[in-house]
Amino acid sequence: MRRKPDMIVTVTLNPALDLTYPVDALVPHHTHRVSAVSQRAGGKGLNVARVLHALGEPVLATGLLGGPTGSVVAGLLDAEGVPASFSRITGDTRRTVAVVDREDATGFWEPGPVVPAAEWSRFVDHFRDLIGRASVVTLCGSLPPGLPIDAYGVLTRAATEAGVPVLLDTSGPALREGLAAGPAVTKPNASELSALLPNWDVGALRALTNGAVVVTDGVAGLRAITPDAEFRCAPPGPVAGNPTGAGDACAAALARGLRDRTAWPPLLVDAVALGAAAVASPVAGAFDPAVYQQMLVSAGAGC
Amino acid sequence: MRRKPDMIVTVTLNPALDLTYPVDALVPHHTHRVSAVSQRAGGKGLNVARVLHALGEPVLATGLLGGPTGSVVAGLLDAEGVPASFSRITGDTRRTVAVVDREDATGFWEPGPVVPAAEWSRFVDHFRDLIGRASVVTLCGSLPPGLPIDAYGVLTRAATEAGVPVLLDTSGPALREGLAAGPAVTKPNASELSALLPNWDVGALRALTNGAVVVTDGVAGLRAITPDAEFRCAPPGPVAGNPTGAGDACAAALARGLRDRTAWPPLLVDAVALGAAAVASPVAGAFDPAVYQQMLVSAGAGC
Repeated sequence: MRRKPDMIVTVTLNPALDLTYPVDALVPHHTHRVSAVSQRAGGKGLNVARVLHALGEPVLATGLLGGPTGSVVAGLLDAEGVPASFSRITGDTRRTVAVVDREDATGFWEPGPVVPAAEWSRFVDHFRDLIGRASVVTLCGSLPPGLPIDAYGVLTRAATEAGVPVLLDTSGPALREGLAAGPAVTKPNASELSALLPNWDVGALRALTNGAVVVTDGVAGLRAITPDAEFRCAPPGPVAGNPTGAGDACAAALARGLRDRTAWPPLLVDAVALGAAAVASPVAGAFDPAVYQQMLVSAGAGC
Repeated sequence: MRRKPDMIVTVTLNPALDLTYPVDALVPHHTHRVSAVSQRAGGKGLNVARVLHALGEPVLATGLLGGPTGSVVAGLLDAEGVPASFSRITGDTRRTVAVVDREDATGFWEPGPVVPAAEWSRFVDHFRDLIGRASVVTLCGSLPPGLPIDAYGVLTRAATEAGVPVLLDTSGPALREGLAAGPAVTKPNASELSALLPNWDVGALRALTNGAVVVTDGVAGLRAITPDAEFRCAPPGPVAGNPTGAGDACAAALARGLRDRTAWPPLLVDAVALGAAAVASPVAGAFDPAVYQQMLVSAGAGC
């Protein structure tokens, strides 16, 4: 008898090798000797995979990786123990450089590799193979150049037709096209949504998609707009820490909730708590388990 | 009968993958999307090898390369057709990032990999093997962490004992230690020499080394201090362009002249002309052949 599919498949089409360069102070037009380099597999979908893996959930990270930088990313992910099955491309996976001085970070983001149509088509085939083993699919982050703008629409329709619910978290035209394919949940942040739909209202949003939309808005918390209801949940107060990756932790909680058919109010509480616990952790893709447990109680009482 | 050794062996112990990120304007504490990335095998010794290769001289680039970044550097060098025989190390070869905006470049230099004693010892063995095929050895650039501070001294003595003249181009303590081993020619620039010997005079310099010292000083040209004489040569006027790599072109000319036992006055003319021709070329490690020919004539008339 066939085993029930239970993997949460996280798709990262434009992952990155994230390099962090600590310096005393960034001075434009000078040369800086970087004392140490930290490197990490980057990309929103990989953060979702890391959070789910840390929660003990069965997860499989997929997407596109290529060139020497792609091999480094694959090696780093493997060292973290996150199960992965990426499709190889000929282009070189991009790097991001974050120069961190005493004040803040300055980012330099390389463009993603240009992905030819044949390699995209090969990934779609690979994705269809994985759907059969998936309980939920997450589609997170930007698209590399060369991919069709409705790439997330293509993947959403393939998963939905196979009965696998989709969580989508992206921005810009990829968000618009993806929404139209009706992911079970789409999770933009407030500024990504406003860039797409200035002065959006619930009606305008419902006209864009058949699915639910969860808007994250920092300390203001989450707002879920489903086809027939609305829910809100906010953390009891601001959490000190690094907000990078908090949205990815929310996405991880929503994906797990989709799999478990969790009802909206407790689902939002979980997403708020996991997002706050990610803020409390210094590294994107990680969360503070104690803050998570504490927030589950305090956010649960307030939502 | 054994063929006469004729290769100029260029040693680069701390090469780099040089990344260039063009941006409109570098704004600290903002994120910049880089439109295109260019990558190049970097390091003073590799520039010397490139210039010699472009001049049609037999050259072999050696040194230390490791990790995925080292493999990328090896691949780039191979694509340029520069013959190479590097010793592999376990550490990852460093990257440099140059963010170039409309005004100027801002540099971020990763630290070199830490090289364990056993890997250094393996390189010294490899170097001794190469000496038998070398007409001249160049030792250029910084030392990666972990190497003995007299690493260039060790290599200089090994080559000198085998009758192969050495050209040294480095700075700081590695320069001081290397000078003491008596390379045939040491080529610091004026600021590197002043950092080592503030208010240096010819007597103080001669007390540091048995060999000749050629000090490069931008448009002021070259000054050679040999054990028993002094020579000067300057370009006829300033050359427009990029001075990065001009010193490496001078080093290439000096290395070729060492091999050919060129007398000092014409040797300095050649080094001035090739340095000026490198300024006239936008890329480090390349030179403008027309400017080179023209400068040979005009610098020759004035020196």
